[in-house]
Amino acid sequence: MIIELKAEERLDDLQRNGYQIIQKKDGFCFGMDAVLLSSFAAVKPGEKAVDLGTGTGIIPILLEAKYEGEHYTGLEIQDEVAEMAARSVALNHLEEKVSIVKGDIKEASRLFGAASFDVVTSNPPYMNDAHGLKNPDLPKAIARHEVLCTLDDVAREAAKLLRPGGRFYMVHRPHRLIEIITALTKYKLEPKRMKMVHPFVDKEANMVLIEAVRGGKSMIKVEAPIVVYREPGVYTQEIYDIYGY
Amino acid sequence: MIIELKAEERLDDLQRNGYQIIQKKDGFCFGMDAVLLSSFAAVKPGEKAVDLGTGTGIIPILLEAKYEGEHYTGLEIQDEVAEMAARSVALNHLEEKVSIVKGDIKEASRLFGAASFDVVTSNPPYMNDAHGLKNPDLPKAIARHEVLCTLDDVAREAAKLLRPGGRFYMVHRPHRLIEIITALTKYKLEPKRMKMVHPFVDKEANMVLIEAVRGGKSMIKVEAPIVVYREPGVYTQEIYDIYGY
Repeated sequence: MIIELKAEERLDDLQRNGYQIIQKKDGFCFGMDAVLLSSFAAVKPGEKAVDLGTGTGIIPILLEAKYEGEHYTGLEIQDEVAEMAARSVALNHLEEKVSIVKGDIKEASRLFGAASFDVVTSNPPYMNDAHGLKNPDLPKAIARHEVLCTLDDVAREAAKLLRPGGRFYMVHRPHRLIEIITALTKYKLEPKRMKMVHPFVDKEANMVLIEAVRGGKSMIKVEAPIVVYREPGVYTQEIYDIYGY
Repeated sequence: MIIELKAEERLDDLQRNGYQIIQKKDGFCFGMDAVLLSSFAAVKPGEKAVDLGTGTGIIPILLEAKYEGEHYTGLEIQDEVAEMAARSVALNHLEEKVSIVKGDIKEASRLFGAASFDVVTSNPPYMNDAHGLKNPDLPKAIARHEVLCTLDDVAREAAKLLRPGGRFYMVHRPHRLIEIITALTKYKLEPKRMKMVHPFVDKEANMVLIEAVRGGKSMIKVEAPIVVYREPGVYTQEIYDIYGY
């Protein structure tokens, strides 16, 4: 089977299992947040995972490369983006392990059924300023701003999709941490692990990784932070290790 | 005036303004948490601050040394401890700036009046396992375990004591972060700054410093972490700077 690239697309190497991913040259490309989330998350043998708002499909593809889970699903609302993610799955011959489903996060539990997954992941839109956008329907805007779903939608659907004791992994922006914790605990997703990502050791965090357990009891571990740069332009060893170089 | 030390007491240098503090040789002595909280907090010229559960009085005394606030109060429920803190205040000739009041955190807003402070600080008992204690009335147990007050009591009274826009500074244990955030937001104390303290850069956090603003809007800054040790037994420069060496 030949997987075709469109003129406006490019192919990027994932540095893992020889996997590659298709991205739009001028579209929303996966970033360090997706890579760090895939490393922070864990999928155990036999478990089923779903990624809410999967975009290029980077998260299920990386999870498949790293863990022994039974199956990975990526849910994506944008037709063209979902179709591109499905071609990346085929490109890596992962059709047996990874499914891309076109659909709305807000409808996810109706689509897949309640308590149907062991693991939910999400790298949701970070910005809650969609009301000020000029072109709220552009694919990049949908990936970055809460145009089509809110943090509350993501938490609610994640909670419904998980079996009791199932795990939700999310990457988000620290400035919204209080909203995040409020939304998770509202739906009985109890945060159990948190890891801050700081660009430099002496700078404020610009990402936060959270693991929450459906129905867990209140007790959280704040892990050692990830520091991205040792000096300007030079990654720390930890980042090289996560990227698999 | 001569300040007398009791046989079971010792005198420790605070490394700031020549101030000293009286502590019990075998009692609860102030720790790094109080020093870090005094450094994380801020009291502006003209402001009034109160420390809930002040113990030795270390926090109001250090705040007086570092900031230009108008007045500092320390509230302490244990007679003997409050009396010792008052002697430390006198020892440093701070009677005009620092008052030690004997009283119960749970009654603080009735004692001082609502909206009567610009700043509230607290280094409350960390452990919520008081039900399992054999001697819950010992001074050390009262300082460490939630025998006489809970996190909810501290948050409620801090909120009542603060003027709108006033700031609450607390040091606590990260494993209780979700409970902390839930208690603060319940009383409209919105967390605005958070700083994790890690013993080593690659170890999980063992303290968390939080600033919450009464009636603030939801938006938090997760600051660069404090790392305590550069290598075993050797403090980082940041810790030396905070201690004022």
